[in-house]
Amino acid sequence: MEKTQYGYRVKTRSTFDEAVTQATEALAAEGFGILTEIDVRATLKKKINLDFRRYLILGACNPHLASRMLAEELDIGLLMPCNAIVYENDDGTATVSLLSAKAMADVTGRDDLTSIVDEAEERILCVVSALDRQIAV
Amino acid sequence: MEKTQYGYRVKTRSTFDEAVTQATEALAAEGFGILTEIDVRATLKKKINLDFRRYLILGACNPHLASRMLAEELDIGLLMPCNAIVYENDDGTATVSLLSAKAMADVTGRDDLTSIVDEAEERILCVVSALDRQIAV
Repeated sequence: MEKTQYGYRVKTRSTFDEAVTQATEALAAEGFGILTEIDVRATLKKKINLDFRRYLILGACNPHLASRMLAEELDIGLLMPCNAIVYENDDGTATVSLLSAKAMADVTGRDDLTSIVDEAEERILCVVSALDRQIAV
Repeated sequence: MEKTQYGYRVKTRSTFDEAVTQATEALAAEGFGILTEIDVRATLKKKINLDFRRYLILGACNPHLASRMLAEELDIGLLMPCNAIVYENDDGTATVSLLSAKAMADVTGRDDLTSIVDEAEERILCVVSALDRQIAV
């Protein structure tokens, strides 16, 4: 697992399709349901006829955490849902990255959201750890 | 229009349904299509039986800008799409807020994306200005 500027990246030994299932299951185990799914390759092909690698953006949401955040700051929906991405590497394996809740919370400039944000980040780290144990290279 | 920490907020005189249509049209005029739509009220009701105001998260994407960003940084899909939110106020009017591309780009810590980010922010500001002219209180 690699910590990036705004998330966590796990290079896996899974295929793209396997990684999508595995990421979805790992998110579900921490209470994150997938609310949206953007097929980046299909979208770029359709809209601007561009060929791109297989790439999905999964919009994950833990409704308990989301409702607590929205109660604190109504506009915070601008920073939701919490994304996970899965993309195919050139060697046929897939990479899974998750957005850091803390990086997003920093954008708000509010220090008083710490307890919710810490819980969100902890759960995201649990997802990352599970993927790291199960399928990391 | 009000600049917030991570976006732009327009308090409108429109109803919720009108504002959704108006925001969608204003985004389309600047090349942003809506790729995802999260009905926050329906989701919170269904998942945790919570009553909440009418609230939509629209995931907007300009495919030209998105492809240029992805070419620069593959993981930047974590910060996509660019959200617009529409929510109902207590007086029956609606508020529309848009995410600032610049605020998101700051999260990446990369200064070399400036030209793409500036173009994205300019287009978002055009959307905000249009809404401000047409439907702001």
